Amino acid sequence: MAVLPLLSDEQASAEALAVFNDIRTKRGTDYVNNFWRALAHDPDELKSVWERLQTVMAPGALDPLVKELIYIAASATNGCAYCVHSHTASAKSKGMTPEMHAELLQVVAMASRTNALAVALGVPVDERFEAEPKAKGLERGR
Amino acid sequence: MAVLPLLSDEQASAEALAVFNDIRTKRGTDYVNNFWRALAHDPDELKSVWERLQTVMAPGALDPLVKELIYIAASATNGCAYCVHSHTASAKSKGMTPEMHAELLQVVAMASRTNALAVALGVPVDERFEAEPKAKGLERGR
Amino acid sequence: MAVLPLLSDEQASAEALAVFNDIRTKRGTDYVNNFWRALAHDPDELKSVWERLQTVMAPGALDPLVKELIYIAASATNGCAYCVHSHTASAKSKGMTPEMHAELLQVVAMASRTNALAVALGVPVDERFEAEPKAKGLERGR
Amino acid sequence: MAVLPLLSDEQASAEALAVFNDIRTKRGTDYVNNFWRALAHDPDELKSVWERLQTVMAPGALDPLVKELIYIAASATNGCAYCVHSHTASAKSKGMTPEMHAELLQVVAMASRTNALAVALGVPVDERFEAEPKAKGLERGR
Amino acid sequence: MAVLPLLSDEQASAEALAVFNDIRTKRGTDYVNNFWRALAHDPDELKSVWERLQTVMAPGALDPLVKELIYIAASATNGCAYCVHSHTASAKSKGMTPEMHAELLQVVAMASRTNALAVALGVPVDERFEAEPKAKGLERGR
Amino acid sequence: MAVLPLLSDEQASAEALAVFNDIRTKRGTDYVNNFWRALAHDPDELKSVWERLQTVMAPGALDPLVKELIYIAASATNGCAYCVHSHTASAKSKGMTPEMHAELLQVVAMASRTNALAVALGVPVDERFEAEPKAKGLERGR
Repeated sequence: MAVLPLLSDEQASAEALAVFNDIRTKRGTDYVNNFWRALAHDPDELKSVWERLQTVMAPGALDPLVKELIYIAASATNGCAYCVHSHTASAKSKGMTPEMHAELLQVVAMASRTNALAVALGVPVDERFEAEPKAKGLERGR
Repeated sequence: MAVLPLLSDEQASAEALAVFNDIRTKRGTDYVNNFWRALAHDPDELKSVWERLQTVMAPGALDPLVKELIYIAASATNGCAYCVHSHTASAKSKGMTPEMHAELLQVVAMASRTNALAVALGVPVDERFEAEPKAKGLERGR
Repeated sequence: MAVLPLLSDEQASAEALAVFNDIRTKRGTDYVNNFWRALAHDPDELKSVWERLQTVMAPGALDPLVKELIYIAASATNGCAYCVHSHTASAKSKGMTPEMHAELLQVVAMASRTNALAVALGVPVDERFEAEPKAKGLERGR
Repeated sequence: MAVLPLLSDEQASAEALAVFNDIRTKRGTDYVNNFWRALAHDPDELKSVWERLQTVMAPGALDPLVKELIYIAASATNGCAYCVHSHTASAKSKGMTPEMHAELLQVVAMASRTNALAVALGVPVDERFEAEPKAKGLERGR
Repeated sequence: MAVLPLLSDEQASAEALAVFNDIRTKRGTDYVNNFWRALAHDPDELKSVWERLQTVMAPGALDPLVKELIYIAASATNGCAYCVHSHTASAKSKGMTPEMHAELLQVVAMASRTNALAVALGVPVDERFEAEPKAKGLERGR
Repeated sequence: MAVLPLLSDEQASAEALAVFNDIRTKRGTDYVNNFWRALAHDPDELKSVWERLQTVMAPGALDPLVKELIYIAASATNGCAYCVHSHTASAKSKGMTPEMHAELLQVVAMASRTNALAVALGVPVDERFEAEPKAKGLERGR
């Protein structure tokens, strides 16, 4: 399956190749995975995604492994098979054990179950889960 | 918004009320939130969800706060407003700081962006992200 | 919430009003619900949806109540609050009991749970679940 | 495609194998499909899903075939190819005819069409589709 | 992957074959793609989809290429790999350049990113984005 | 509905306020809509989204109005009510007529209908819709 051919180093533009090489350097591997080779048809988006990804996935208040678990959860519920595969591999490389993987999937399955129930029941949000009234002077929305 | 009326303690069946009271005990609060009061129309599903939820969200290889973050990520990508509100509240009560919340949302946004790109490009899964060939003797699927 | 104002009978075009009146006649009620009043801004789509809906929801190999249950299941998983509300009302008017409603939601919740697991695990489809090889002479797809 | 290898009987833990064998007994077949072999990496979730599935899909106010139709509707709208394949096979084994299958898909297609319209138009839920005001004394939500 | 076998001209019913031939005539090609051959199991839905599709995709206030771009955007966010592939091919045949394709994907990715953020933040709709109050005399919904 | 309070100019950090003011300048209006006031809790993501949005929505191979139509299509299928409202308003301000709006919704509805059918039928992608084989030397994926 492929909407656009994956670009080899030779086929990529100079700007895309620079991103490929930065991926190699930062990840310490010669391998550039298919997502980047497909996205290389648009060097601007390729560069923007790669740069933002590094910022977002860097250590912060959450550590990189927790961020990968969150990434997998979002990707699975968004139905992206590619992303589930690539980020599960990435999470393993950052220390995700089989036990952690199993618990991650249990939570995603539980959330999907209760998400479906809450939508099908049209459950109204409890007042106490709502943020405080916004600052005075702002237009009121619903 | 509500497909079914929320059941008060008086309106709930004995089996549902027992779950309400178990929620109160386990959570150390008198408040039973709307999801449970809507689900109480089906005491069997109510009990099943509540019991499984406790198992799934208990400390294990992942700690309860990380599990809440994963729950929010799945709920947001599933588009469940109720669940986003209730589990954000729950995550805060378990120690989620504003910085952690911000990083969680950054990852969910990043995942949604690349999920859309991977699907729109039909990126094929790299061989190295696939699990090892399955055991001999199993029927071959695709 | 509303992207476009709901059109009253007076505001609707002649073509839209004809559909409103057909809805009244076929349903035996004077009430025209909001979906049709919002869709009335596009009389062509309004007419096309209303006509196809009658064909699709008519008694056939499946009876109308079963079709409403299927409609609710699809609407809940698609995250359409409006449709969940309107088709739950419709199913009730066609005989859906609280017990049937509860079981419907149990199945939708179960499906959402296993759907999430199957996607997160990337489970390959078993050969025996695949249709027979297609007729000779057709281009081979994947 | 596979995030984790499918486990053969020999590779499965004793707890997982017990579930495999229960599936064989209850279904009257020696075949254990891929979903269970992938889920077997987490015997706890495997057991929980299998047990709940039997309860949920058992005859009740809705018969098992209707439940399979609902399962397919949810799986298709959730975008789970595996689940669509496995539950279509299951529905056929429970008596789904080609005519029933065609009507099921017509309803799912119709729902998806109107779901998209209702969301894109932001149609507000009609008061008459809302549940009665909840019991006095409950916190008011929106 | 296939839930139902694709039907060849010989296997299709007379009504389905008539649609196949109309597709050939209108598109000026002998090739009938897999979607129609799978849908041919239900000649009624096949005919309904094909006829509506011609109306919807015809030149109007929007030109056919813009409509294809919109179709791809919806298909990608709905997670339909088949539709992304077939409508990208269709858009190319109508003049979509690589630059237009790249910008389309950038917008879809941007939307998916902000959609996730808006849902996860539960942002209330600004009053000024709401339609004018509906006509007097209509039941008030939320 | 709101997970976090909307921040007024006084409550926003200096970095967030700078983005608010840039929005005002670039859009030629004093009004800053709710999305930005909610996102202001994370000035880094606020700035990143705002900057990328300007690049992505700028005139290019596609004009800004077409980009807004694509944005609405993605937002509706992603189920984001906020985004549907805000981008419909934005498209109108860029010249979207009622006729264009109607046709946009027709295409989104049509796509959602056929997306559901293609997934429920498991239609295999036609060979001719697949990209050419990738360059030699790249790892083979599926």
